[in-house]
Amino acid sequence: MQGVIGFRKVWGVGVGKVVLTFSMSLDGFVAGPDISLENAMGVGGDRLHKWMFHGGPENAIDLGMARELLLKVGAVVLGRRTYDVGLQHWGDTPYPVPSFVVTHEKLDKLEMESAAFTFVNEGVAEALKQAQAAAAGKVIIVMGADVAQQMLKEKLADEVYIQLVPVLLGSGSRLFENFGAAPLELVCDRAVNSPHITHLKYKIPK
Amino acid sequence: MQGVIGFRKVWGVGVGKVVLTFSMSLDGFVAGPDISLENAMGVGGDRLHKWMFHGGPENAIDLGMARELLLKVGAVVLGRRTYDVGLQHWGDTPYPVPSFVVTHEKLDKLEMESAAFTFVNEGVAEALKQAQAAAAGKVIIVMGADVAQQMLKEKLADEVYIQLVPVLLGSGSRLFENFGAAPLELVCDRAVNSPHITHLKYKIPK
Repeated sequence: MQGVIGFRKVWGVGVGKVVLTFSMSLDGFVAGPDISLENAMGVGGDRLHKWMFHGGPENAIDLGMARELLLKVGAVVLGRRTYDVGLQHWGDTPYPVPSFVVTHEKLDKLEMESAAFTFVNEGVAEALKQAQAAAAGKVIIVMGADVAQQMLKEKLADEVYIQLVPVLLGSGSRLFENFGAAPLELVCDRAVNSPHITHLKYKIPK
Repeated sequence: MQGVIGFRKVWGVGVGKVVLTFSMSLDGFVAGPDISLENAMGVGGDRLHKWMFHGGPENAIDLGMARELLLKVGAVVLGRRTYDVGLQHWGDTPYPVPSFVVTHEKLDKLEMESAAFTFVNEGVAEALKQAQAAAAGKVIIVMGADVAQQMLKEKLADEVYIQLVPVLLGSGSRLFENFGAAPLELVCDRAVNSPHITHLKYKIPK
């Protein structure tokens, strides 16, 4: 039995979990309106990421959560708009791992300091396939509301991490729209409050 | 000093906190679409209250939270539609305390088993004034998304309790719309996960 369990574990390494991770306002927005190069998070949307920039011991929970995900990540799948507005901000790949951009444009692989951007023209499922090969069993993080919605719709997402920000933005881009057949049941297996936000973790039963 | 503190406490008793308490889907809906007598919570909206009807020890957190609020409540302010679709369901006032219905129609006070419904024609602020007099320092619970939004807009709400349900409903009535000037900052002072939902508590700074 030990041998079988061992084999299954090794075999299991080949398929990394697909994780959507978003900082979301209490009224459901993951970006403000009018996203542009100047306002990568939309107008007023920077508020959603403010929790990342607090220092000191009161930020220990938030840093711990961010580090936990950083240790798990093996690849990123992101949308073209997220890439366009994010690149100057990151100055690198968004995480230090291979990153796959879903786009209609044919672009050459772009080597950055930590890893490379690869541009995939065949859609979200193909980008995920390439990301899973690169991630070697580690987590694939999905960035960008459009790509995340397609992952939900095509039943490709395994987990959703929400950093729930105690603000009502009133307008912008919602994460949970166009996700396919409703209702969609999730299972919340963690809720941790920090002084700035609430960290929620959901599994998507398949 | 003791006397002063005592006086302030007694004086403080006169003004009960205004609490919005809603079971909300992760995508922000507090009811499904097409609310009617048959579907008081809208189509599919009953899912949001399912957590109240689980039995056994796994429900201890949820029951504890519900009881905490029940012990604090002194009056209710609710909208006319909530009253119309809720009455047959409750068979009484929604909580065992004086309940004030905001409506344009002139209706006589209606005595129920636990307390009375009073119909207020002069809007949300006047209904709240009457509720605060009746509550004698205890909490005023606000029911109905429309009335809740007006309370937010007119800066009358003190706290928001959200029972966050791990489901995406896709459509229905959103709580956080038409709440006035955005962004509106809140402070989350509690996040407690039960096996069924996440209990969130927010304060609204004034």
